[in-house]
Amino acid sequence: MGLIPAIPPVDEAARREAQARFEVKTKPRGSLGELEPLVARIAAARGTADLQPLEAAIVVAAGDHGYAEEDVSAYPQAVTRQMLANFAAGGAAINVLTRRLGIRLAVVDAGVGAGTENATRGPAMSRARAKEGVAAGISLAGELAAEGIGLVGLGEMGIGNTTAASALAAALLPADPAAVVGRGTGIDDETLERKIDVVTRALAGNEDALADPLSALAALGGFELCVLVGVSVGTAAHAGVVLLDGFVSSAAALVAARLAPGSVERMIASHRSPEPGHAAILAELGLTPLLDLGLRLGEGTGAALAVPLVNSALALLAEMATFAEARVSEH
Amino acid sequence: MGLIPAIPPVDEAARREAQARFEVKTKPRGSLGELEPLVARIAAARGTADLQPLEAAIVVAAGDHGYAEEDVSAYPQAVTRQMLANFAAGGAAINVLTRRLGIRLAVVDAGVGAGTENATRGPAMSRARAKEGVAAGISLAGELAAEGIGLVGLGEMGIGNTTAASALAAALLPADPAAVVGRGTGIDDETLERKIDVVTRALAGNEDALADPLSALAALGGFELCVLVGVSVGTAAHAGVVLLDGFVSSAAALVAARLAPGSVERMIASHRSPEPGHAAILAELGLTPLLDLGLRLGEGTGAALAVPLVNSALALLAEMATFAEARVSEH
Repeated sequence: MGLIPAIPPVDEAARREAQARFEVKTKPRGSLGELEPLVARIAAARGTADLQPLEAAIVVAAGDHGYAEEDVSAYPQAVTRQMLANFAAGGAAINVLTRRLGIRLAVVDAGVGAGTENATRGPAMSRARAKEGVAAGISLAGELAAEGIGLVGLGEMGIGNTTAASALAAALLPADPAAVVGRGTGIDDETLERKIDVVTRALAGNEDALADPLSALAALGGFELCVLVGVSVGTAAHAGVVLLDGFVSSAAALVAARLAPGSVERMIASHRSPEPGHAAILAELGLTPLLDLGLRLGEGTGAALAVPLVNSALALLAEMATFAEARVSEH
Repeated sequence: MGLIPAIPPVDEAARREAQARFEVKTKPRGSLGELEPLVARIAAARGTADLQPLEAAIVVAAGDHGYAEEDVSAYPQAVTRQMLANFAAGGAAINVLTRRLGIRLAVVDAGVGAGTENATRGPAMSRARAKEGVAAGISLAGELAAEGIGLVGLGEMGIGNTTAASALAAALLPADPAAVVGRGTGIDDETLERKIDVVTRALAGNEDALADPLSALAALGGFELCVLVGVSVGTAAHAGVVLLDGFVSSAAALVAARLAPGSVERMIASHRSPEPGHAAILAELGLTPLLDLGLRLGEGTGAALAVPLVNSALALLAEMATFAEARVSEH
């Protein structure tokens, strides 16, 4: 058995059935805009047009990064551990949103304190360690699916992790580092230049590893990204829907797409962040974001904010009357 | 006493206080993107930064239009009354959304059956009748405010009402009819040309009425737009927040803005529809939409979908821990 589970094909008949049902609902044709193909996509992913709103969870994987040695963030590395405590105390943004929106929150300590190596000096972690992270994510996805969670949002926290995400995006798209490195938590011009240089050196120092997605993931990090890769492919394997958040989670989704191309059809982009690499990854995955609000907080906050949209769209298909039921005249 | 109530000025100190509180929450500065100025705007409107999520209502005003005689819609005029029955039975899109999202729904029969005159042949209604509609909306807004509703979404239904909205937009912006007439429920090219001609003739035939916003509203219709104008100014007068929906509701908001400029600071744009006149009105009002999903259903559906975003943003300000509270290091 390999590490990556088989992803069942999506159900095109269910997609067409969902589209056909929207056609006879009491509304102008196509007037729910992007929500109609969204629901059809979920029908294809779930294998049925008999959909109800999905139980949702956000997985927040937190990890430390050797990149932090290179002074690439506006915040000190200690913040990763401090935020883990904030998650536990319920004071972080993702706590507020998941409480309010009825979403399960699962926080994973993915190497806080015991972070990755500095990838400018060699691989961020061994291939074996990366596999452990992916396997842990797959296992968590299986638990969530077994508990009836059908919609899993990807969240992350980790000082330095937009550097890891930029390196992965540059390696896998591929793209020039300058095109996919952004200001993360809000760095100044000097730090931005340094961050581009760090990504460039990480790619150069790990050149032999970059052809294979799992090796690239191990070489460039981070460990919380490994976990999210596992959550993505594991959720897709259970016919769940994966809800991407911002740039970092989308870099994990890109790795998942390379390891298991069938997982992409079960992904939804919740939003587009101002990080330049985010739009590039979404374009590569063929995903259109639901929200475009300049969010760049991470933690799965954009994914959480998209959950009511997704579930409202599903409720519309499930509950709206048809023209015939409501005796409303069609065209 | 005039028809239009006084609108209290917004509270700039409350706006600054909300901004300042976001600065010390455990997140990168500004990382909630457009949600931060949104919350600050609501603080200014409500006169306090001590905000909690707002009780929300959607007012759906339904009315018939003399424009329907001109064959400007993809649906027969009978659909307005049929949809009123669908609202009562709970089968329409707005019923599904308000149920799911915990929003009060108030449906107003604003001249269903007893609709406006065909504005290509004279005024759609008398100025006195228009005032009745505005007064009814103001009264309803007062009732909602008294019941603790702080967020009021504008919804509408009425075959022919994008024609009325286009005429109002053309008159008040002002704009060329061809620039603000769109496909509404999904009309073909021939009907689109006819609709532009109908708007052009309505403007020409009511030229003397167009300088004054209330006279323009009476001349061009519709009666459900009068009610929404009243809901807008009435909600603003009670320091409530007005949540615009699509093109038709935004045309009502534009009239409200002309009658009571202070109401604009209490408006939020929920989404941008594909109707070309919608973007023009939002630009005129200086409002940036939260959603851009190609929605063109009306009924307040876009407003309903934005309610969880607005209330999630308010919850973030109210509930997130500060750096000091969570002992997280700042820059």
